[in-house]
This record gives sequence, C-alpha cells and structure tokens, in this order.
Amino acid sequence: MSKNLTKRDQDYSKWYNELVVKADLAENSGVRGCMVIKPYGYAIWEKIQAELDRMFKETGHENAYFPLLIPKSYLSKEAQHVDGFAKECAVVTHYRLKNAEDGSGVIVDPEAKLEEELIIRPTSETIIWSTYKRWIESYRDLPIKINQWANVMRWEMRTRLFLRTSEFLWQEGHTAHALESEAVEETKLILDIYEEFAQNFMAMPVVKGVKTESERFAGAVDTYCIEALMQDGKALQAGTSHFLGQNFAKAFDVQYTSKEGKREHVWASSWGVSTRLIGGLIMTHSDDLGLVLPPKLAPIQVVIVPIHRNDDQLDAISEKVDGLVKELRKAGVSVKFDNRTFHKPGFKFAEYELKGVPLRIAIGPRDLENGTVEIARRDTLKKETIDFDTIVPFVKETLDAIQDNLYQRALTFREDNTTEVDTFDEFKKVLKEKGGFISAHWDGTTETEDKIAEITKASIRCIPLDVVYEEGICVFSGKKSKHRVLFAKSY
Amino acid sequence: MSKNLTKRDQDYSKWYNELVVKADLAENSGVRGCMVIKPYGYAIWEKIQAELDRMFKETGHENAYFPLLIPKSYLSKEAQHVDGFAKECAVVTHYRLKNAEDGSGVIVDPEAKLEEELIIRPTSETIIWSTYKRWIESYRDLPIKINQWANVMRWEMRTRLFLRTSEFLWQEGHTAHALESEAVEETKLILDIYEEFAQNFMAMPVVKGVKTESERFAGAVDTYCIEALMQDGKALQAGTSHFLGQNFAKAFDVQYTSKEGKREHVWASSWGVSTRLIGGLIMTHSDDLGLVLPPKLAPIQVVIVPIHRNDDQLDAISEKVDGLVKELRKAGVSVKFDNRTFHKPGFKFAEYELKGVPLRIAIGPRDLENGTVEIARRDTLKKETIDFDTIVPFVKETLDAIQDNLYQRALTFREDNTTEVDTFDEFKKVLKEKGGFISAHWDGTTETEDKIAEITKASIRCIPLDVVYEEGICVFSGKKSKHRVLFAKSY
Repeated sequence: MSKNLTKRDQDYSKWYNELVVKADLAENSGVRGCMVIKPYGYAIWEKIQAELDRMFKETGHENAYFPLLIPKSYLSKEAQHVDGFAKECAVVTHYRLKNAEDGSGVIVDPEAKLEEELIIRPTSETIIWSTYKRWIESYRDLPIKINQWANVMRWEMRTRLFLRTSEFLWQEGHTAHALESEAVEETKLILDIYEEFAQNFMAMPVVKGVKTESERFAGAVDTYCIEALMQDGKALQAGTSHFLGQNFAKAFDVQYTSKEGKREHVWASSWGVSTRLIGGLIMTHSDDLGLVLPPKLAPIQVVIVPIHRNDDQLDAISEKVDGLVKELRKAGVSVKFDNRTFHKPGFKFAEYELKGVPLRIAIGPRDLENGTVEIARRDTLKKETIDFDTIVPFVKETLDAIQDNLYQRALTFREDNTTEVDTFDEFKKVLKEKGGFISAHWDGTTETEDKIAEITKASIRCIPLDVVYEEGICVFSGKKSKHRVLFAKSY
Repeated sequence: MSKNLTKRDQDYSKWYNELVVKADLAENSGVRGCMVIKPYGYAIWEKIQAELDRMFKETGHENAYFPLLIPKSYLSKEAQHVDGFAKECAVVTHYRLKNAEDGSGVIVDPEAKLEEELIIRPTSETIIWSTYKRWIESYRDLPIKINQWANVMRWEMRTRLFLRTSEFLWQEGHTAHALESEAVEETKLILDIYEEFAQNFMAMPVVKGVKTESERFAGAVDTYCIEALMQDGKALQAGTSHFLGQNFAKAFDVQYTSKEGKREHVWASSWGVSTRLIGGLIMTHSDDLGLVLPPKLAPIQVVIVPIHRNDDQLDAISEKVDGLVKELRKAGVSVKFDNRTFHKPGFKFAEYELKGVPLRIAIGPRDLENGTVEIARRDTLKKETIDFDTIVPFVKETLDAIQDNLYQRALTFREDNTTEVDTFDEFKKVLKEKGGFISAHWDGTTETEDKIAEITKASIRCIPLDVVYEEGICVFSGKKSKHRVLFAKSY
C-alpha cells in the first residue's frame, strides 16, 4: 500500500511508475513497450472517452473506423509524413505461420510473404485520405468531420506506462473542408474542446499555443497544442490539433468541384488525444499517499467503509447503507459499498487513498446510534462528521468543491512555476533550481531553438495563443524578438 | 438508389454486397480484406456496443485492454489453440523502415528484425492468460470477469463486408473462476445475454445450442452459440460463448490457493460477438428497397422530409418542425430533419428507404393548413395521415410496433423454414428446394458429420439446448441417435 510508495521528492519518476502499478491502473505486458490497461485504469479512459465523444458529436462530428494496416506505399505519399512516421513502426511482412518440420513449434511460412509490406498505423492520415478520395467529388460532399477511436502503434525505444507506450489508445479526428478558413476554424474549435475538457473534467490547467516548425506534426502546416505542467516542473503535451493545409489532399489527389464548377484541392485538419492523458491526470493531482482523482473522472466517487467488530454490527450497518447507496445513485453519484470481511477498515482506507477515491464515508455502530457518518476528502484529507440525513446534498456539494479545489491548486502551482526571464544565465538558473515553464524571448530560428535544447534540455513547448507582442531580445542570440515563448523540459 | 439495387430473388449475395455499400454502411479499403466502416454503419455498431456493454456491466463485468500483438511462443502454448489460429494470421517481423539507397522509396530495414515474431491478435486468450497468471494468487482474486472491446485480425482468403473480414471489431470476454460450475454458469449467462440482445434489440430470433466437436473453438471444452436464419435460408453463427475448462490455466500455469489452502488450476470462459452482427441485422430484415432497421438499433429513428416548392414554404414548415424535433428528442426519439434544398423529396424518400429509417414524416403546405402530417412505416411501407398534436405518442407506439413486427416476421420465417426430416433423400430435397434449418437425427460421429457436409455442404449448426431426447435413427448412417440436431448451409 501507500506506505511502500516512493515519495515524490525522493524520486518523482519512480513514484509515478510505482503508483500506476499499485493503484491498479496499468502494467507492462510480455510484449515490449505494450501495456495492459487494467479495469480501474480503463474505467478512467471510458469516462474520458464518454465526455470527449459527447463534445465531438455536439459539434457535428461522426465516428467511423478505418483499417489498422496501412500499405507501405501510402505512407510514402506525403514526403514529410513518411520521414516522421516510417522510421519506427511495426511491419507486417507475412500472413501465415506453419509447423516447423523439426517439430520445434510454429515458424513463419516463407511462402506466405506479402507482396507489399503493411504497417500498423502510427496515425491514420494516409489510409483516411486514400479513402476520402473516393468520397469527395463535389462541394456537397463537404465538410467531412470524422473521428475514430482506435489503437495505434509507434515503436518507441524508451517507454513509460501511459506517457509513452508502443501501442496506445486514442481518438483521431480527420476533417475535410472546401475552404481554408473552415479548416483553420475546425483546428481551433477542437483545440478549444481539448482545453475545456482538460480544465473542466481533468481539472488540469493548460496553455493553448502553436508549435514551432521543428515540433510540428509531420505533414502539418500548423500544429496547435495544449501544454500542461506536471508537479516535477516538466511540461506534458496533452493534445494536438493540426491544420494540414492541402498537403494530404495533394498527396492523395483529393479535389472537389466548387459551386462555381472549378476543381479545387480540399483543406484538412487532424487532431488527437490519447491514453497519455491518464499520465497527465496522475501527475497533476496525486500525492505521496497515492492517486487523487477529480470527481468528474473518478470511476468510484464515494466509497463507503463499514466499521464493525462482528456480523451483527455489519448487518445493521448494511441495512442502513443500502438505502443510502440507492439515494446516492439516484442523485447521479457513483458509489461503492466495500463490505469485504477479509480486510480491516484500516487496510481499506489506505487502499482507497491509493486509488484516489474522492470521498470516503466511514460508518460504525456509534454512528448508527447518533445518526451520523464520518466523511473524509481525498484532496485535503480533512474529515468531518455529518448527519445521516444530509449526506446526499453534502456529497454533491463536496464533489463539486473537490473538482474546483483540484483545478485551483493546479492553476496556482502552474502560475507559481511560470517564470519570465530575460537573460540566458537566469534561464539556466531557473530551469535548474525551479523548473516549470520559462517565458523568454526567442529570435524565431530553429538554430537557436536547437542550441538552447542542446545546452539545457529544455524545448519550446509552444507560442501561447494569448502571447503579448512586445519588442524584446532573444535570451540566447541577443537578436530581436517580437514576443516571448514558453520553454520547459518535457515528457 | 434502390432502383439500381439487385433484387433478393435474383441474386441474394449480390443484393447484400450492393446494399452494404449503397446504404453507406461500409466499403472495401485498399488493404486486402479490411473494410472501412462508414459513419452510418459505425453508428449501428455504437448502438450495439452501448447495449451489450450495459448488459455486461449489469452482470458484474469490467472492461480492460490487452496488447494488440502476441509473441509467437504464446500462441503455441495451448496445442489446439495454435492449430486453430496460427495458420492464417498477420505476422510482424520488423520494427523499422528506412529510405532505400537508390532513392526508390522506403524499404524494410533488415537490421530491425525482431528476435521473436509478433502476431496481430486473432483472439486474446493467450495474451490474457499470460497476464492472469500475474493477477491470480488466491481464491480472493477470483472471479475475474473482464471484457475487451477491440480489433482483431484473421487472414481470411475470401472476405465479405461485415460477415467475414480480415480485420473486424468485436468484444471478447475472458473470465477466470475458482470452480468449474461457476465457469459453466458464466458461459451460459453470457449465452442468455446474447440471446436477449439478438431478440430484443436486433429483432433477430436465435437458436441457442452447443457446437459439435468439429465446430468447437480451438481450445474449448464446449462451445455454445446462437444461430440465426437469414432470408436466403442460410444460417449465421451470431455469437459464441466457450467453456474453456482448465485448458488455458494449464497451458499458462495459472493456479490459485483455495480457502482450504490447496493449489488448484483456474476454470475459464471466453465469449464474443463482432461486427458480423451487422451482417446478420441486414440479412434478417432488409428488402428489395434497401435496409430495414429495428428502431432500437437505428441511428435515425424518424426522418422528417419537408415538401415545398419555395423558400417561404420551407420556412413555414421549418418553424413548425423545429418544435416537433425538440419534443421528439425530449421523448428519447432520435430524429433528423432533412432540409437540404439541392435534393427533391422523392430523392430523399428513396434514400431513407435505402437506409432503413423506421419512420418517415412528410410535411407540406397543405399539412400545415390541416394540422396534419403523413407518416410512413419502413417495415410495412404503409402511410397514414395523423394530427400534428398526436405525433409524439404515435411515433413512440409505432416504433415499438415496428420492433415487434420485425421480430415476429423473422420468427415466422424461421419457423416456416425449419423442417424435420427423417431420411437422407428428404434431407437433400429440403436443402435443395427450400433451405433453412433441417432438424434431423445424427449418430454423433464426426465421420458422419463430415460426410454429410461433403455431400450437401450443410453442417451441423448446433445441438439446440431445448432439444427433445427421443429414440431415433441417423438420417445418414442409420445408426441409433438420441436426439435431433440442426443442420444448415451457413455463412
């Protein structure tokens, strides 16, 4: 349990790895870099999916499904895209196994070699644009606003549960538009949806911004992103929305006939968030006792633990609790009554702290007499004794209060850990002693960006969308700069 | 539109293939045997998922996610399993592409060969049981009742949209139990859930039964199934639930310590339904005009088509319809108002017939005057004029009536096309002239089963669970038989 959990200030990275496993969220599998997402972790993903799916549908998107495998030649059609994605990917070369003649087991059948190798999708732009070519003929066929929930695979060398795995789950949106302005608008609409989701559901403040050229998606004209700050002062790219211009339309020759009868290439966007969000959720809120989950994404919002010495006491408590469980469920609260008898209350308390359940209700024989219960908040660890009759409204209000508190706490942390610097010495000092986001002037060149990264390991996370235009001097080169950008070390 | 749709009695198979594409459900992709599921088809799958997921959760199952790729050696651990699944599968042998030196494009990097090949999961028993080994220590860890929504791949030689594709979407349940009786009970519970779903949501009657040895899942002790009858007299296996005994527990050495302190192998079940269900849905209800969808799974339950000659008329109709749309949505009805002006009403009527929308409301200027609308049922094609004020209750009742009617119609069809025969001549005659299920005595040997299949192309679909035990004589061998079994040609 939590007493065996490494403390954050001892080794943040170790704390994270242990917590993911101990809280039953995920674990490594026998397949290099691929994780097993356990039921408790998957339940969080289902809540993330449900909310995002609703938001996508409310803004006119539909779901569809495209093939897992992509012919090698498709990947090659967009020059930058293939450079970005063809390098580390899983390649299917054969379609059959057979029994080895020496009886040693099954081997790949050399006769069953594919004429063209197939790649497990690292992202689906190419297979989708090869399909859109068949679907798009006239302006009447536009816009197409499709999202896909899928697994993808990138052969990562160094993996970490949720944050960077070879296989991961995500949603990827792919839209096609008649006009450039519509595609840009779509790209930004999705960025707003990602921001709203991160802030209102994950209680994770994010900076909306645009990536520099070197951090852009392979094949994009512009990559927009949301960047969050983790407790160890490193940034996490939590979602990206790409304006693809006409790059994929040209690569796959997708044109439409306009109202005026002209043939034009289609404009595009693509955008995605993944199971990486769960990593962000963990690192934004959790503490040395374990997970801290925002109520809106917690699989269990309230756990009820009976305090009893014998079966009679448990029966009396259970009778009282059964009605409460029903009332809470009717009020839309997800609740679990843990009446296991082979674990003691203290064990259960520690377990639910580790698992980040927002509210814990304890009820014993004396509570039955007094008509009370004890409620403990996971975020503040404060306990309160309240009347049985007031539980439902108290729970509803307190869940809202926890959701707000987590967001405010994370926002304060980010504000306290965003530092404006004007010299490179200051830049290095802040990065070393404090970490966090560093807001500094930059001359706009990839050369400077690369040199800063080489020296400090910090990269430009984004140019914030709300950046203030002001005359300045690049902290590294001393050349002129028009605005600050956000630097940080990152995941 | 439907006028170009092949008639069922001309060529059922062609009718099916055309319908899937014309109704915008799915299409073939550029990847052999893999389909693109289009938004309208995927919306049906989402409805199927939502209902099944609810039913699984209500019976104590949780979702999780296991890796897409399975090491070749895992597949080999269960002897029958590898024979059944290793033959036709997608094999990943490399993890990198590189630019060809001659500049001709990207090629597989021979340096990046995997030490052990990885197979894209054809089903997940092996990867899951290799994981359960880590999770199961004591009786307290049991039962484990996990479901996974995932894509799987089997390298099929002859593919048909939804019915048999190389990649398909499905759910696969994998449970682990302390006792044999619990695992058997679970296997049957799931079969009941599948039956309930097929009948109450798909309006598709099914026969519950158990497979003969030769049709059993590779690695199962018993395979239970639901079998449905399509309009062309062929059977469709719509779902299977396997009692796996201790086969996988033994193959992966998964043991638990019982309450009595003994080490015992775990008992298992696995079960699944797939996007194949959509093929069954289409072939159970649809007609020569196109799809016929049961209201409970229809993405659009009611479409409203305005009948207008000019913009003023459309404005007046829209004003009236807006309120109706809100009222219907409030009543839980999914409704679409098709106010496109570049298509005529006749075009729209044909389109929604083709797409199987259960109810169509047409409203024109005269209806506005009279306070009426015209409502047409897709299943019976009957039209009725009703008062505007009664639309909501009428729609609710009629949707229920359509759901019932589709089920009853399909049930009657199946009853009319299930024939008891007592001689092999009769068997062949019925199969040739009428098709459908043939209920006949069989001697219980694989030899006879194979010979009948060889001669007639009909296989034993199942031994129905409600079979009557009676003395009989095998239609083929003349040997003794204890009960009839169901034969049919099948998909």
